[in-house]
Parts: sequence; structure tokens; C-alpha cells
Amino acid sequence: MTTADIVAALRAQLGDRVDTDPAHLDAARADKSGHAAAGMPLAIVHAASVADVQETLRIAHASGTPVVTRGAGTGLAGGANAGSGEIVLSVRAMDRILEVRPDDLLAVVEPGILNADLNRALAAHGLWWAPDPASREISTVGGNIATGAGGLLCAKYGVVRDAVLGVDLVLADGRMLRLGHRSVKGVTGLDLTSLVIGSEGTLGVVVAATLKLRRLALGRARTLTASFPDVRAAAAGAAAVTASGVQPAIMELMDATSLAAVHRLLGLDAPEPGAAQLTIQTDGPAATDEADAIAATLTAAGGVVRLAADDAEAELLWRIRRSMHPAMETLGTTLIEDVSVPRSALPAMFDEIARIEREHGLVVPTVCHAGDGNLHPNFIFEGAEVPDAIWAAADDLFRAALRLGGTLTGEHGIGVLKRRWLRDELGDDQWELQRQIARVFDPTGILNPGKVFAR
Amino acid sequence: MTTADIVAALRAQLGDRVDTDPAHLDAARADKSGHAAAGMPLAIVHAASVADVQETLRIAHASGTPVVTRGAGTGLAGGANAGSGEIVLSVRAMDRILEVRPDDLLAVVEPGILNADLNRALAAHGLWWAPDPASREISTVGGNIATGAGGLLCAKYGVVRDAVLGVDLVLADGRMLRLGHRSVKGVTGLDLTSLVIGSEGTLGVVVAATLKLRRLALGRARTLTASFPDVRAAAAGAAAVTASGVQPAIMELMDATSLAAVHRLLGLDAPEPGAAQLTIQTDGPAATDEADAIAATLTAAGGVVRLAADDAEAELLWRIRRSMHPAMETLGTTLIEDVSVPRSALPAMFDEIARIEREHGLVVPTVCHAGDGNLHPNFIFEGAEVPDAIWAAADDLFRAALRLGGTLTGEHGIGVLKRRWLRDELGDDQWELQRQIARVFDPTGILNPGKVFAR
Repeated sequence: MTTADIVAALRAQLGDRVDTDPAHLDAARADKSGHAAAGMPLAIVHAASVADVQETLRIAHASGTPVVTRGAGTGLAGGANAGSGEIVLSVRAMDRILEVRPDDLLAVVEPGILNADLNRALAAHGLWWAPDPASREISTVGGNIATGAGGLLCAKYGVVRDAVLGVDLVLADGRMLRLGHRSVKGVTGLDLTSLVIGSEGTLGVVVAATLKLRRLALGRARTLTASFPDVRAAAAGAAAVTASGVQPAIMELMDATSLAAVHRLLGLDAPEPGAAQLTIQTDGPAATDEADAIAATLTAAGGVVRLAADDAEAELLWRIRRSMHPAMETLGTTLIEDVSVPRSALPAMFDEIARIEREHGLVVPTVCHAGDGNLHPNFIFEGAEVPDAIWAAADDLFRAALRLGGTLTGEHGIGVLKRRWLRDELGDDQWELQRQIARVFDPTGILNPGKVFAR
Repeated sequence: MTTADIVAALRAQLGDRVDTDPAHLDAARADKSGHAAAGMPLAIVHAASVADVQETLRIAHASGTPVVTRGAGTGLAGGANAGSGEIVLSVRAMDRILEVRPDDLLAVVEPGILNADLNRALAAHGLWWAPDPASREISTVGGNIATGAGGLLCAKYGVVRDAVLGVDLVLADGRMLRLGHRSVKGVTGLDLTSLVIGSEGTLGVVVAATLKLRRLALGRARTLTASFPDVRAAAAGAAAVTASGVQPAIMELMDATSLAAVHRLLGLDAPEPGAAQLTIQTDGPAATDEADAIAATLTAAGGVVRLAADDAEAELLWRIRRSMHPAMETLGTTLIEDVSVPRSALPAMFDEIARIEREHGLVVPTVCHAGDGNLHPNFIFEGAEVPDAIWAAADDLFRAALRLGGTLTGEHGIGVLKRRWLRDELGDDQWELQRQIARVFDPTGILNPGKVFAR
């Protein structure tokens, strides 16, 4: 079949849900990483139902056409970028909440719903879905599942893997499987639900998900910050909090460059040169006691602590952390990295970042989910394409994280941007085994080819 | 190769770790389900190291000999039972704790360590591994991983899937893969660690596991019981507790037959005819407030509540629940079933059990982890083999659980005893896909053949 035949076949079955507007096709080439696929996709199918997804895949399967499943396009690793000859299967319009069960603490949703929209709807039931990627206002639940997303609350409340009971998955040939269960426990057969979480569109298309919910925490959250003379001292302070046994809901670390850039952006007084900062939130019935205990731990660790007196002051403190990405955008184009290390290795990882800055002649502003050891070093450059010198520094970063017992990616995924390092972490045998497993789901290799596993 | 050649090859490499004592071989045919495999295994290899496991698998792979991995043999589905022509690969002697990291809240252990032994060692660090199958004094961590074990604390503290970060897995041909990670977050490639959890020896042999730990809860646990006139009222009471938003650490339900049998065994006054009972524990800093709140909820639901005044009284109340299995053994041979349903479906599931008792002319004493909807109906019979009439009633039970949105097995696994119902839950397409995935790990099918997937 020619590409025109394929588009015609899609239109015959799916009518005006098939979109070939050049501006839309161009937008589907890129995500929030800034990276764009080469060439133009054939068409976007705006699926409105499971049947639409199945029909699209039947046509793709019959014609051997690659399919890139896409939600809101907010990924940071190029995993949903579509290029030449590919069909974009958008599930963004499948955004219904199918069921909320407070008695079973679960909800069944379509993949296209935004994380924050879901949580606003759940709040009316006194419930929430814990995964909270920083992108939660703009990213979909389906995308959160596809990447195995994390967020700020993970050390206390878990990641996506901990919060999904089951998914309905449409296979490459259009058949649908119901994976997982609705009960708290269930060990019938292999856990394919977990296998789909983080599989970045390579195994099938998630058309519904059964989510494990929590009750909204009672009591008022408390916020504090602690300033340290340098980033290593701040990392040691975070480790002291973890070692104390008090579990913050959120514990974020900003290094000196990040902090200075945000203060500049917001027009605040410049921080002390070299100063790094922790921003911490406690929640639940013991929030105040826990905030006091953490303040004492951080003061003993050499931090200058500020405990927000009220919600307005807390909001001001969080505004500094949340302004990180806008501040980075003022410096140039950003490659946001995502290594994760065991918590005890945080100070050593900051030493490695300092070494990389020195040896590569770069400044690498870094924020870190210090409660769980997930760092986001920001490589800044000019122009649209990541220069080789930046990739060389990123390569150095990845190898340092692996040496410290860590991983290439804590929450963003492999996509296209990190696939060349995948074998370094998995080893050749595991890499090959994973590829073969993907082939069981997708024997002809039409699902997101070239992503995760370079083929 | 003849079977004698295979045993000779094992002996040449593994010396006196190869065991052909007929009494030991006979014991390896059965687990705690009472079911025994047909025929005698060839030999038991008592592996003392990863190298022993790899060598055993190389010989098995080269000769096409089936291998049944075994820990303490406490399974309830026949998953580790070895029969004619099979090598038993025992990892029970690989029971070291390789690493405990309080700062990273993780431990690395060998598979043969008993769950309770591990937790006694961790307690010295103020830590624990949350999965708590009722068998924890006699079952291994490797077995807990192989079955995806649950326990009593799951609604509050999770199941095995929530508590394992990574495993080292020896494949059928003797190669070793390191799966998973040591960091809180990690999404590099497919989540093969979760795939191995609950795979019942069909994908490889776990030779080490990186476990996610918790800090020991502070404060004194509180215990209460609530008696209800019938089991449906008790189930509704449990649902009212879940709906109230207070999360007990443990919430167990015993039906009238169970309760009466235990009272007889312990020489206690007989309970009111038909009476069923909840036994509940709260823990953590708010244990007392939570126990009081639960007592109020259960009183309002029509229960007669008894709150233990001290640890001695609490111990007495828990002794009743813990005497369930000894009490069942006084009635005959027991087939312990393991269905799990969404929590809201508990009363309806008890109605189904009452119907099955009526229609099949049986008494089916049932205990239930009411906090998570996992029921253990006990089918009692005479002799060693499960009679067809009992399997017919069990078949009725499984179909009822599936109709209510539940699953065949919450925590015991499929093994041999439930494999004929596996397709009913998974559907033919998913069943075939799972089989193909197992074949990627084990192309020649030597790992625990005939278990889970009837071949």
C-alpha cells in the first residue's frame, strides 16, 4: 500500500478523526524535550473510543505501518515523537473517568485524562491518585503509565508502578487484553500490568487503567526550607532527614546555580554565593510535629531553617522551586537529565556533577528529589540540537550514576534520547531478552519502532 | 543421556551437594497443600552458591532435564512439587543476608532465608520487610517472591510486588541477569523484576533479591474484636471500617464454623450459634485513636466490640485467629482456597459461599483478610486426594469470584492445583501471550514444566 492508500483506509473507517493538517503533523514530531523526529508523520488519528484504537491498529498491522501512541506530548525523552511514514495514534480525546469506587479505593479511567483533572475530580470523593509528576497539570494518566512516571511525593507515596492495578491493552493487531485485577491482591499468572508500565508504547496501547487510590491526607501540610553553604552540605542534610526516620511528603534540593537563576527571574535578593537549599513539606495528622523534628535535624546538620508560618508563606517558598524550569529557559535551550541513585549516594553524585562541570567546562544547574535520590541536571546550550560536547558530558553523567549503583532514568524514560545507553545499564543479555519480550507483544515491530530499543 | 548419566554429571560438578536419599526425594514431591507429584525426582541439588545454581542449570539445559526450584516447600498450590525425571534445585541453604542499608532502606538477601529470620535480623536495625504471609516463620523470601505472596498487613503495607526493587535471576541456560535497581525510582527498560515476582519458577531462579524496607512502626499496637450475629453482618462491618477511612494494620474475619472449631480446639466456651468475628489491629503513633474510631464504627454497625486492655489480652485474641489451621486439621484433610475480590464485594462473596455450601451439601469454614478482600475458604474431606465433588464446589467458588470482579488466587499462586482455571481468568489470548513470554526466558521449557501453564 502507498502512504496515500493507508491514509485513505484510515479515513474510510475513521472519517474526520483522521487529521492531516500540516501544523498538527509538525507538532506531533516533538515533545517537551525539544527533540523532533525526522520527517513528517502520515496522519494523526484522534481516537474517541476503544474501537477507534482497534481499527487504527488493524489497518496499521495489515499495512505494516508504524504507530506512535501519543497523549499530551509532554514527554522529556522523545518517546512519543512521530516521524516519516508513521501514524500518530492520539488518545488525548479519550479522557473520561469511567468509574470511581471510594469503597474499593479505585478508579477506572481512559488514558487521555490529565493527571491534575483526574485529581480534581477525585478530590470531590475525598480521594487522590498519588503519582505527581511535575507535569501533572499538562500530562496524561496514559503518558504517566507509559513512562512509569514519578514525581515529588514518591518516597512517601510511591510511583506509578505502585498505583496501577490493571490496564486494558490493545495489541499491535487490534486484539484487546484485560490485564491485572480490581482486588488489592491478585497473583494469577504473570504480572503483565507491571510490564506495560514504563514500556513507552512498545507493547500495546493502553485504552483504560484501573488505578489504586488513596484517601486525601487529613490536616494541614507544613513547609520549611533550609539553606546550606554548599550543595554537598544540603545533600548531607537530606540524608540526615532520611536517616532520622521522619518521612517528609516532599524533599527538594536546588543547587547554587539553580537557586541564583530563580532568584534573578523572580527579582528576589541574590542568595549567598554557593548556597544550596532544601524545600520540604510534611503532611498528614502529624505534619507539624514532623516539620519541627526535621527542622531540628537540619539545624544540627548546619542548615539555616525557615518554617513557613502560614499557607501564604509556604506558597512563596514553593514558588521558588516551581520557577526552576522557567529560570532555565532564560539561560538557553535545556537538556533535562534524570539520573537516580540510592539515597546514600546523593553527596557522591553531586561530587560527580561538580567534576563533570569542571572537566567539561560547563555549568550544570541541578534540582533533585532528595527524598528519593532522583536528580535532574540541566545541560544548557544554544540552538535546537544537542551539541556533541553536551552529549559527551551527559555520557559522563550516566556512567557516574551507574557506578554509584544508580540508573539512567528515574522517571522520564528512555525514548530516543537515552536508547544508546540502554545496553550499558541492562547488559547485552537482558537487553536482548527485553527486545524479544517486546516482539511477543508486537511480532512485526510496528509499535513505536526505534524507541527504547534501537532496532 | 540416561537419568544415571545426569545424576553422575551433577555429582561430578557439585559433589555431595547432590542428594539422592529416597526419603528426601519423596519429601520434595509435596508441599503444604498435601498434593504430591507423580513419580520420584532424580536428585536434589542443595545449592550453596550462585555458581552451584548456574552449574545445575547448565547440566539441565544441556541434557533437557526439567528443574523444579524449591525453598522451604511451604507452598499451597503444588508449585514446587517435583516428580518423575525432574531435578530439584533447592536454594534453601542460600540463606545469607548480603547487605542491610538503613540509609537506603534496602537489604540484599539470598532466596533461602526464612521471612521471619530476616525480620528478626532487620529489627536490630529498626527495620522490617513488610510482606507477612501467615507462613512467615517457615517460608522463604525466595518462595514469597516466586508466589508474589501477600499476608495480613497488605491493605496498609502492601504485597511482595510493592517491596522488591530488584532480583538476580539465573536463566534456564545458566546465564545470570541483574534485574531492577537499588534506587527508589528507576524506569530503564521493561520492568522484568515485577514479571519475575509471582512467576512460580517458570522464568528463572532468583539467587538474590534487593528488598525495599520500612522502618519499624513506633508506638504500641492495639487489638480489638467485634462479634456479629452472622458472617454477612461481619463483612458489612469490615466494609464500614474501610469506608470510614481509618486504615487498620490487620483486619481478619472468621466465619461461624471457623470460630466454633477454634473455640472447641482451645477449650473455650462455644460462641453464639452463627456468630462471626472480626479481629483488628491498629499500629503506629495513632494506634489508640484509630482503635477507638474503629470500635465506634463497628458498634454502630451492630457489632459487640472488645478492646484488648493490654498485650496479654491482645495475644489471647490473636491466638484464636492463629489457631484456624490447627482447628481445620482436626476436621479432616483441607484444601485451602484463596480467592480475592474487590472489598465492596465481600458480603456478596460470602453469600456465594453460603450458596455453594447449600448446593454442594458441604460446610466450608472461611477466614478472610477482610481489609483487602482475600478469602480462604477451607474445603474439608477424608483421605489424601481431593475428591471430584470438592473440585466441583471449588470450580463453583472460582467462577463466583470471577463474576464479582475478583481473581482465582490472591496470594498462593496457580501451581498445579489451579492451572485448569487459568484460561478462565486470563482469556485465551492473554494465556497464550504469557506462555510465549515464559518461552523467551526458557526456550526449551525445562523450568518447572506443567506448573502455571499446563503444557
